Amino acid sequence: MSTRPFQRISAPLGTSLAIVGLIAVAALTTPDLPERTRHNLEILLVGIWAAYLLQLAETLIVPRSVDFRDRIPSVTVDVLAVAVPFAAFLFVGRRDQSLYCAVWLLKPLRYSTFFRLLGRVVRNEARNLIGVTSIFGIVLFGAALAAYVIERDAQPERFGSIPQAMWWAVVTLSTTGYGDEIPQSLAGRVLAGLVMMSGIGIFALWAGILATGFYEEVRRQDFVRNWQLVAAVPLFQRLGSAALVEIVRSLRARVVPAGTVICRKGDVGDQMFFIVEGHVSVATPEPVDLGAGSFFGEMALITGEPRSATVSAVTEVSLLSLYAVDFQVLTSSNPDIADAIRKTAIERRGAVPKE
Amino acid sequence: MSTRPFQRISAPLGTSLAIVGLIAVAALTTPDLPERTRHNLEILLVGIWAAYLLQLAETLIVPRSVDFRDRIPSVTVDVLAVAVPFAAFLFVGRRDQSLYCAVWLLKPLRYSTFFRLLGRVVRNEARNLIGVTSIFGIVLFGAALAAYVIERDAQPERFGSIPQAMWWAVVTLSTTGYGDEIPQSLAGRVLAGLVMMSGIGIFALWAGILATGFYEEVRRQDFVRNWQLVAAVPLFQRLGSAALVEIVRSLRARVVPAGTVICRKGDVGDQMFFIVEGHVSVATPEPVDLGAGSFFGEMALITGEPRSATVSAVTEVSLLSLYAVDFQVLTSSNPDIADAIRKTAIERRGAVPKE
Amino acid sequence: MSTRPFQRISAPLGTSLAIVGLIAVAALTTPDLPERTRHNLEILLVGIWAAYLLQLAETLIVPRSVDFRDRIPSVTVDVLAVAVPFAAFLFVGRRDQSLYCAVWLLKPLRYSTFFRLLGRVVRNEARNLIGVTSIFGIVLFGAALAAYVIERDAQPERFGSIPQAMWWAVVTLSTTGYGDEIPQSLAGRVLAGLVMMSGIGIFALWAGILATGFYEEVRRQDFVRNWQLVAAVPLFQRLGSAALVEIVRSLRARVVPAGTVICRKGDVGDQMFFIVEGHVSVATPEPVDLGAGSFFGEMALITGEPRSATVSAVTEVSLLSLYAVDFQVLTSSNPDIADAIRKTAIERRGAVPKE
Amino acid sequence: MSTRPFQRISAPLGTSLAIVGLIAVAALTTPDLPERTRHNLEILLVGIWAAYLLQLAETLIVPRSVDFRDRIPSVTVDVLAVAVPFAAFLFVGRRDQSLYCAVWLLKPLRYSTFFRLLGRVVRNEARNLIGVTSIFGIVLFGAALAAYVIERDAQPERFGSIPQAMWWAVVTLSTTGYGDEIPQSLAGRVLAGLVMMSGIGIFALWAGILATGFYEEVRRQDFVRNWQLVAAVPLFQRLGSAALVEIVRSLRARVVPAGTVICRKGDVGDQMFFIVEGHVSVATPEPVDLGAGSFFGEMALITGEPRSATVSAVTEVSLLSLYAVDFQVLTSSNPDIADAIRKTAIERRGAVPKE
Repeated sequence: MSTRPFQRISAPLGTSLAIVGLIAVAALTTPDLPERTRHNLEILLVGIWAAYLLQLAETLIVPRSVDFRDRIPSVTVDVLAVAVPFAAFLFVGRRDQSLYCAVWLLKPLRYSTFFRLLGRVVRNEARNLIGVTSIFGIVLFGAALAAYVIERDAQPERFGSIPQAMWWAVVTLSTTGYGDEIPQSLAGRVLAGLVMMSGIGIFALWAGILATGFYEEVRRQDFVRNWQLVAAVPLFQRLGSAALVEIVRSLRARVVPAGTVICRKGDVGDQMFFIVEGHVSVATPEPVDLGAGSFFGEMALITGEPRSATVSAVTEVSLLSLYAVDFQVLTSSNPDIADAIRKTAIERRGAVPKE
Repeated sequence: MSTRPFQRISAPLGTSLAIVGLIAVAALTTPDLPERTRHNLEILLVGIWAAYLLQLAETLIVPRSVDFRDRIPSVTVDVLAVAVPFAAFLFVGRRDQSLYCAVWLLKPLRYSTFFRLLGRVVRNEARNLIGVTSIFGIVLFGAALAAYVIERDAQPERFGSIPQAMWWAVVTLSTTGYGDEIPQSLAGRVLAGLVMMSGIGIFALWAGILATGFYEEVRRQDFVRNWQLVAAVPLFQRLGSAALVEIVRSLRARVVPAGTVICRKGDVGDQMFFIVEGHVSVATPEPVDLGAGSFFGEMALITGEPRSATVSAVTEVSLLSLYAVDFQVLTSSNPDIADAIRKTAIERRGAVPKE
Repeated sequence: MSTRPFQRISAPLGTSLAIVGLIAVAALTTPDLPERTRHNLEILLVGIWAAYLLQLAETLIVPRSVDFRDRIPSVTVDVLAVAVPFAAFLFVGRRDQSLYCAVWLLKPLRYSTFFRLLGRVVRNEARNLIGVTSIFGIVLFGAALAAYVIERDAQPERFGSIPQAMWWAVVTLSTTGYGDEIPQSLAGRVLAGLVMMSGIGIFALWAGILATGFYEEVRRQDFVRNWQLVAAVPLFQRLGSAALVEIVRSLRARVVPAGTVICRKGDVGDQMFFIVEGHVSVATPEPVDLGAGSFFGEMALITGEPRSATVSAVTEVSLLSLYAVDFQVLTSSNPDIADAIRKTAIERRGAVPKE
Repeated sequence: MSTRPFQRISAPLGTSLAIVGLIAVAALTTPDLPERTRHNLEILLVGIWAAYLLQLAETLIVPRSVDFRDRIPSVTVDVLAVAVPFAAFLFVGRRDQSLYCAVWLLKPLRYSTFFRLLGRVVRNEARNLIGVTSIFGIVLFGAALAAYVIERDAQPERFGSIPQAMWWAVVTLSTTGYGDEIPQSLAGRVLAGLVMMSGIGIFALWAGILATGFYEEVRRQDFVRNWQLVAAVPLFQRLGSAALVEIVRSLRARVVPAGTVICRKGDVGDQMFFIVEGHVSVATPEPVDLGAGSFFGEMALITGEPRSATVSAVTEVSLLSLYAVDFQVLTSSNPDIADAIRKTAIERRGAVPKE
């Protein structure tokens, strides 16, 4: 927990440094660069490299609560980010040594949870993705063979061998269409039309598989995360596990930084909030402070009236929000929770007279 | 409520003026335009500008029921639509001043609810969209770097630096394929094939995320809106909230202008209707007038026979429609509602003899 | 009902004639066509025209059970298919008169139910489709304006006016990329990259909206159709409407021509069948004939063994099939149906000894 | 069962041989190939051919448990893979005879189950896919006709006939955009813009239909397969069929080779496992061996603690895995199963003290 603030700072900084570094790498390859600019850019790269060296040191020295094995991927990225440019500095000529800083492309993979998510989707759908890729390969080779047979006599310099025809096939099948190799015969053009249509179909299959797999994995991860958060809200603790499953499915987790206005007086509200961690301040005539386990915003869902007070985050707050639709489902099947929420609402309404 | 008719007129008018204005802006840039045409087009622009000035005045002067803060976006658009062309008129030479009228592109954003919807989807899916965009960036830079290394010696004028190679990479990764920069070596072409396939995959991920996010947000908004409308139908008011949730999910809201034929005698009906606001006329031998809270079209769902009478809107009518599939679900789980609907149907059938 | 066989024949014939006719129209436009071929093709067109005239006569004369108003679209297509070429014959020169036969493109719209389905989807999703199209328009104009400002001095012959730049913008935004207009400056290329990415995003939104809308409409139509078919199966008639809804959702309708083998002895079965209309023959040692209201194939779902006999259609058969997954759901929540099916299965097993 | 190990080896081998063979075929078409290389490649092809001959022999001679009729597709592929190259060797000149080895493209179809899946999806969605393809055809012909009329006078060598214009139309509608035929007039460019937008729309429809159909078919197949596996787990056998359906929907089947680490001590667990076939070893201080019908990994789901021991596969293991979300649903609606799992968990916790 103690290293969390550090991580909060280091994630955007680490990514920004990578972006700046990669821009410098790209700039260094432009021809006719004045020697002075080149020199400054190289110093910039050395600076970023030094920052990454510090980060590596911090990563290795400061103890973490996480098991070391779980940190292998990020430590590997950190080591590579330092070692590869250093090795290039030692063994590669000046012209190309900066190119090896492109290893910093891996840095964002270290911070984002998205890539882990993507990895799981690809693993779950591997069988289908391989299947579609096989079709891609079969159509590609078949199209190249047919184009070779059809066009080799008319355009020997473009379709004179299957590898050459395959270049045409991949450019056409992906509907990129550079236009450097174009079949001229009628048969070749009919073939090209069919290849384009196959390309669209294969693309559509790919999109369908990835979209479906993505959607399922996101839902599953949300469930696991919310399950842990729900345990921190007293109101939910006395529920049976069937009701709990329902609630966990309904809630959406959100983290807001200190100072954020969570809901504003006069707005039409379509969600209520449960506080998992942190404090919020309710701007009633006598401001009220709510902490972990409290909830607010329920009145807008019960009465349909606009928000009666502005609520803002005092500290960084971890929230679970419940939309109107799910609130209705929840309260209708769990009269206990409904009663508890309504009782609080009535008490508050007494305490907070509406202007 | 009193400004609603005005808004009804102003929305399509405001958008049409913007379209006409933008066409004029485009026309003014064509070379060799006769001075007379140019003059007329400029007068047209001034006219549209004057109309927008009037609209701005109306917006600021006439009081609205909505809170001012909620109107900030549309007021901002209105102010910009007037101020930017005026500033251009003062400070920019004649050749380019009309270009600043392009700020009218923002006008449609003011009227449509679609953009608010899209904004929410993008906010909800921000984490995943940023993730895919990062992949796009990483593949883009990696591809440009590889293409630069592979092709720089063979085609120095096209792949001579990473920024140049990046142009090729973005054109290929988006499968646009202008054909101005094409790798010639075998390695470059294999790389290009992989980049095209990655492009399709990234596109597919993007489509999947947006489609999923869109679908969920639309369903949520429909629920909130229908929830408010359902309260106006007496038949539904005695239901428990579990049944109410079910109904709200099933209904589809629709607004039809006065005079519309809602269902036509002899048609096969697959939905029944509940009136939220307005009046309809049932063209039986003795025409019947139905008002808010009534329902019609239920017989087609109960007996499966074609519509026995034509129903048309007398005033603008706000309707909730219930499809056959949902009607069955609803009546099977709520015998009360089923009885009420059937009783009305039998009474009507007595009153409206079938020809 | 009596005209059904005629329709069965006329649908593929009408479509085939249209295809042949359109190929002839296309062929007639090729330059240097020998006069003799031209003559023959024209005679072919006249023949198809005569066939459509006959069809129009049949449509107008033979009485139909359907209400005339419902037939307006198809009658309109039939009238146009005859009238437009005839008018062209009278008033247009010989070179172009055959082009007017392209009105036959409308013929497939007359037969397929797909276009009605598509029409409903577009109507349901109109608001969202218009929204995305607006974004397309806004990005298009914005991109053209920016490209014009950026590139007009460097490439006046390509980006010299907004309409010219708009051609580049539409070619790029749709990721078509002809390559005839390409920005050369750095700013122009960054703009182009952003436009390509927007194009992919807009495309993704479009795909998501259409896919979702399509899916919902297909499910709704299936439900309405199956609902009517289920009424013909005695086994289902004593069910309450809640169970009926469940069954209607599970079943899939299918029509097979006479002679088709519906299931084959020894196959692994994952569905059972209910006969709505027609007869099937079960190839047991003593062949059994089953008619409307019967079911078969249930044993494979109960015991998991391969099919014990081949079943083929004696007449054209309208079937409802029930997959293993839905069979389990159905029988577990409706013990009555489960008992009835199991009893029949046991009787049959007695009668049909397994080899 | 006895031929299973052979199949396990033959599937990747058969596919690899096909890939190597096709690369050789492609290489043989490159011009100016040294005679020696050509000779070696031809010997390679003969070798692969011989391997396929062996495989064919094995297929025909060794008896299989599967019905012969079910094997027709794969036997056909095997026969063609041998017969076509042999016939080409006899009757075709040396230059082209190797091309006939491209029949080996069919080999992957023989092994993968993906193609059968795809076949079913296409069959199920045939009506809609044909509908979209008709739209594609109609738009294609309409666009070609319009482009021909608009551009024939300005560019007779490119748009001089409908077939020529159709080449432009297919290249544009698929957003390939070679850039060899480009409309020059304003009307032609507006047409092109509309064609590109239609292309994107058609693509979106296609993607939506395939994605939906694919998703439904995959779910159905998973259900049928899991249904059979669940029968092998004693814990599930006493459940009623309603609960069984629920479980079968929740489980995910997986086969892991011997030696795989299934879960690792210290990991956060989000799933538990049921063994259908094979043995695993639990690396507790006194290693425990679990066989078919056992389950493990339940503690992580009950307590939320990290895995307390590493589990690895001793033999090839067929597993059913249950995710946290489904575990909660399952145990909340089936107290019996919940009790059985918890009891085992407590016993094990006694036996396996946590470090």
